[in-house]
Amino acid sequence: ISLDLGDPSAGRLDGKMREKTLTMDTLNPQVKAVEYAVRGPIVLKAGEIERYLEEGGTKPFSEVIKANIGDAHAMGQQPITFLRQVVALCTFPELMDSPSFPEDAKWRARRILQGCGGHSLGSYSASPGVECIRKDIAAYIEQRDEGVPSDWENIYLTTGASDGIMTILRLLVSGKDSSRTGVMIPIPQYPLYSAAISEMDAVQVNYYLDEDNCWALDINELHRAYQAAKQHCQPRVICIINPGNPTGQVQSKKCIEEVLHFAYEENLFVMSDEVYQDNVYAPDCQFHSFKKVLYEMGPEYFSSVELVSFHSTSKGYTGECGFRGGYMEVINMDPEVKAQLVKLLSVRLCPPLAGQAAMDVIVNPPQPEEHTFKQFHQEKSSVLGALAEKAKLTEQILNAVPGIKCNPVQGAMYAFPRIFIPPKAVEEAKALGMQPDMLYCLRLLEETGICVVPGSGFGQKDRTYHFRMTILPSIEKLNVLLGKVRDFHISFLKEYSGLE
Amino acid sequence: ISLDLGDPSAGRLDGKMREKTLTMDTLNPQVKAVEYAVRGPIVLKAGEIERYLEEGGTKPFSEVIKANIGDAHAMGQQPITFLRQVVALCTFPELMDSPSFPEDAKWRARRILQGCGGHSLGSYSASPGVECIRKDIAAYIEQRDEGVPSDWENIYLTTGASDGIMTILRLLVSGKDSSRTGVMIPIPQYPLYSAAISEMDAVQVNYYLDEDNCWALDINELHRAYQAAKQHCQPRVICIINPGNPTGQVQSKKCIEEVLHFAYEENLFVMSDEVYQDNVYAPDCQFHSFKKVLYEMGPEYFSSVELVSFHSTSKGYTGECGFRGGYMEVINMDPEVKAQLVKLLSVRLCPPLAGQAAMDVIVNPPQPEEHTFKQFHQEKSSVLGALAEKAKLTEQILNAVPGIKCNPVQGAMYAFPRIFIPPKAVEEAKALGMQPDMLYCLRLLEETGICVVPGSGFGQKDRTYHFRMTILPSIEKLNVLLGKVRDFHISFLKEYSGLE
Repeated sequence: ISLDLGDPSAGRLDGKMREKTLTMDTLNPQVKAVEYAVRGPIVLKAGEIERYLEEGGTKPFSEVIKANIGDAHAMGQQPITFLRQVVALCTFPELMDSPSFPEDAKWRARRILQGCGGHSLGSYSASPGVECIRKDIAAYIEQRDEGVPSDWENIYLTTGASDGIMTILRLLVSGKDSSRTGVMIPIPQYPLYSAAISEMDAVQVNYYLDEDNCWALDINELHRAYQAAKQHCQPRVICIINPGNPTGQVQSKKCIEEVLHFAYEENLFVMSDEVYQDNVYAPDCQFHSFKKVLYEMGPEYFSSVELVSFHSTSKGYTGECGFRGGYMEVINMDPEVKAQLVKLLSVRLCPPLAGQAAMDVIVNPPQPEEHTFKQFHQEKSSVLGALAEKAKLTEQILNAVPGIKCNPVQGAMYAFPRIFIPPKAVEEAKALGMQPDMLYCLRLLEETGICVVPGSGFGQKDRTYHFRMTILPSIEKLNVLLGKVRDFHISFLKEYSGLE
Repeated sequence: ISLDLGDPSAGRLDGKMREKTLTMDTLNPQVKAVEYAVRGPIVLKAGEIERYLEEGGTKPFSEVIKANIGDAHAMGQQPITFLRQVVALCTFPELMDSPSFPEDAKWRARRILQGCGGHSLGSYSASPGVECIRKDIAAYIEQRDEGVPSDWENIYLTTGASDGIMTILRLLVSGKDSSRTGVMIPIPQYPLYSAAISEMDAVQVNYYLDEDNCWALDINELHRAYQAAKQHCQPRVICIINPGNPTGQVQSKKCIEEVLHFAYEENLFVMSDEVYQDNVYAPDCQFHSFKKVLYEMGPEYFSSVELVSFHSTSKGYTGECGFRGGYMEVINMDPEVKAQLVKLLSVRLCPPLAGQAAMDVIVNPPQPEEHTFKQFHQEKSSVLGALAEKAKLTEQILNAVPGIKCNPVQGAMYAFPRIFIPPKAVEEAKALGMQPDMLYCLRLLEETGICVVPGSGFGQKDRTYHFRMTILPSIEKLNVLLGKVRDFHISFLKEYSGLE
C-alpha cells in the first residue's frame, strides 16, 4: 500500500467518491429525536459569547451569568468540607496519618475502603455498589422515613440519578412492542425524561401540572391523561418529580396518596425522582417520600406497588454534580426482574467509587456527638439558608415585573416564571421558525448576558411561555440578574407592543 | 384511605389479585437477551462460596481467588502514587498548602481545577469533558503516534471505555431498521460487545480469530463473515480489540492495514478498542494505533475512514477501574452527526470529574526533568514488569499441562487457554443444560476456589472449549492458582476418561 495516495478530494482510487457510513440520513432516528434543552442551543450560544468576550470582544455586559443548569459549585457554592475530606482520604489513604484530617472523617474513609476490593477506590465495586454504602443508605432511609423498613439489598448505587432513571426505563420499555409503552411524565418536566423516552422510542404521556395552583399535581388530570393515552398505547409507568424540576413545588401528602392509589389501581410502575428531597424552603411545606406515604397507606399498597425512588449527590446542600453519585431504592420489584436489573448494571461494571463515597457521607453525616458536627452543620445550614433566601428573593422580584408571574419556589433550585410575550413577538418568532420563549431567551442572553432556558424545553400548556432559571447565583449576582431580567422584560414588552 | 388494609395475601380491596407491572413476561426482551459472563453465574457462585467461608463454612480451600475480571487493585496492585496525589489535590484543594505533596502534582491539580466550573471537581464539566484535559489527551496522542495530528475537539471523555462504546453504537444502530445493522465483532470477544448488541437489537456478525496463529485476525475470515452477513443484514461497523481481550494478541501493522483497507472498501465504521495499549509484553510485539496506521496509508484513507478509538484509566499500569475514566478520539465523523453525539452525551451531563482528572495524569505523567519522575517511573515499570513476568509464567505453566494449550499472552491482562474436555464430560454438561466449559469452571471453582470465566461467555469455535483467567494475582498467588488448575485439570481428565 502506497504511503501517499494523493489529494483526497480526488476521490477514491477507483474513481468513486467514498461516502460516509454514519450520516444524518443513517443516524439512529431515535437519537435524532432526542432533545435536551438544559444544554441546548441557548447554552451553545452562551459559550460562543463567553469566548467572544474572552478574546476581547465587547458586549453591553462584561460576563455571561449561567442560570441554565443546577450546577451549584460552578455558581460559587463551596463544597462541604467534611465530604471532601472523606473522599480525599479514600483517594489517598496516606492522609490517614495526617493530623489535619479529623478522626470522624478517617473512620468513615477506612470503613469505605474496607468495603472496596484491595481496599482501593481504584477497584470495581459490585455492580449495585459497595455493600457497606448500600447499608448506610438503607439506614438513612429508615431514619428519614421514621422507621419504615429499608432493605439494603434494594439499594443500587448509580452514576448520578440520570443513570438510574435511564436504567429503570430500559427495563420497562421495549421499542419493538406493537402496543408501545406509555410513560407518564409531568409537564413541565425535566428534559432527561423526554430525552430518554425519545431515545428508547417509548410514548410520552403528558400530565399537566396546575400552574394556577402552585404547580400542584391534580389527580383528575392524571386520570384524563391516562384515559387519553390508553387509546393509542399501554401506559405502564408514571414519573413524578418531587420537589419539582423545573417547577419547584413540593407535593402534599394527600397528593402523593392520590398518585399512589391511582398507580395501584391502574397497575402503573412508579418512578419517583426525589433528588431535591433536602431542598425544601417554604415554611408550610415538608418533603414526604413516596415510600413512606405508601407504607402509611397500609400493607395492601406497601406490599404491591412497584416503586423506585432516586437520589443524587448533585443537589441538596452538597451540590456535588461532578462526582456523579446517586442511588435508587427499588421496592416490590419481581425477584427475577431484579436479577435482570443486576445483569444489566453489570455490563457497565459499576458506578464511580468516588461518587459512591460522596453518597455515603450524605447519608452518614457527622452526628451531634462528633467533633466535626459543628462545622458540618454550619456549612449545611449556610447553603440551605442562602437557597431559601434566594428562592424568596427570586419570587418577589419577578412578581413585581409587569407581565411576569412566578409561583413560589417551595423547593428544588429553580424558578419557572410565566412570561407574557406580545403577539407581535410571537409572530416574529414563528417567522423565524422558533418558539416564542426561545426568541425571548436568546434576546435576553444577547442583550444582558443572562443564560436561562426557554419553557418550551420543559413543556408547557399551549400559548403559555416560561423560562427556567436557577436560584444558585450568589445573592449579589442574583440581584443583578433579576434586575436585568426586569429591565429587559419591560423594554421587550415596549418594543413589541409598539409603545416605543 | 385506611392505614391498615389487612393481610396483603388476601388480595385487592375489590377481590382481584393485583399483578406486578414489570415481570419476566413484560420485561424489555432485549434486556432479557443480554449476557455478560464476566460477572455472570460463575461469579455469583463465587460470591456465595466466599460468604459461606466467611460464616465459618469449610471447603477444600481457604479463599476464593477471583481471576475472572481485570480488576488490578482488587488483586493487590498498588495505585500509582502520583496519580492519586493529583486526584486528592483536586478533591481537597486545601492540600495545596501541604508540604508533603509535590509541586509537580500541585501544578497539574491547579490546572485541572482552573478548567472546572467554580474551580471545583464538584461542578459538571462540558459534556465532552474538561477542555484542558481534552487538550492534554490530544497532545498525548500526537506524541504516541509520532506526530500524527490530533484535534482536541475530536476527544470526548467517557465514563470508562464501556460508556463510550455504548454511546457510539447507539448512534449507529437503529433497532427498528428493517435491514438491521450488522456489527462485526471478533470471536472470542469481550462480552460488552455482545451485550450492547443484544440490548440495542443489532445483528452480531462474528469474525473468528485464528487460534492456530496466536489469535491473529485473518483478513480472509473478515471477508467471509462480511459476505455471509450481507445476506441478512447491513454490516455497518467493525469492532476491533487490540491488544486482544480475552485473547491477548497484539496486532501487526500489516494486519491493521488490511482491516482498514477492508473498512475503507466496504464503507464500514471502525471502532478500535485500544484500552490495553500500554499492556504489551512480548518482546517481538509493539502497539500500533489504528489511527497512526490509517495516517500512514495516506490522505485518501486518513481523510475518509470513520474511526473511533477508545482508551481507559482502568487498564494499563494504573488499573484505576473504580474511577470510571476514559476517552474516545473520533476521526472523520460527519460534523452534523458530531453535534448529535454531543447532544446525546449532554443528556447524561458529563463523565465523573475524578475519572477525568485520573485520565489527565495518564496522558500527562511526570517528565524526566520533574522531581516526581523517578518514583513514578519505578512504580510504572514495576507494574508492567510484573505483568510481563506473569504473562510468561501463565503461558509456560498452562502449556505444560496435558490437554491445555495456551497461546502466548502478548498483551492485555488475560490468558485464554484451550482446554480439552472429554466427551463424557461434554455429555454430562449437555444433560445438565450447561455449556461444557461452564461445567468445567464450576467444578474448578467448587473444588479449588479459583474463579475463571468459561470460554462460552466470550464466544469460541464450535466444539472448542476455553476459559479466561486474568494474570493479575501476585506471582506467589498466581503460582498457587496455576498449580491448582493443573492438578484439577489432570484429575478432571482422569475422572471423565474412565482412567480412575
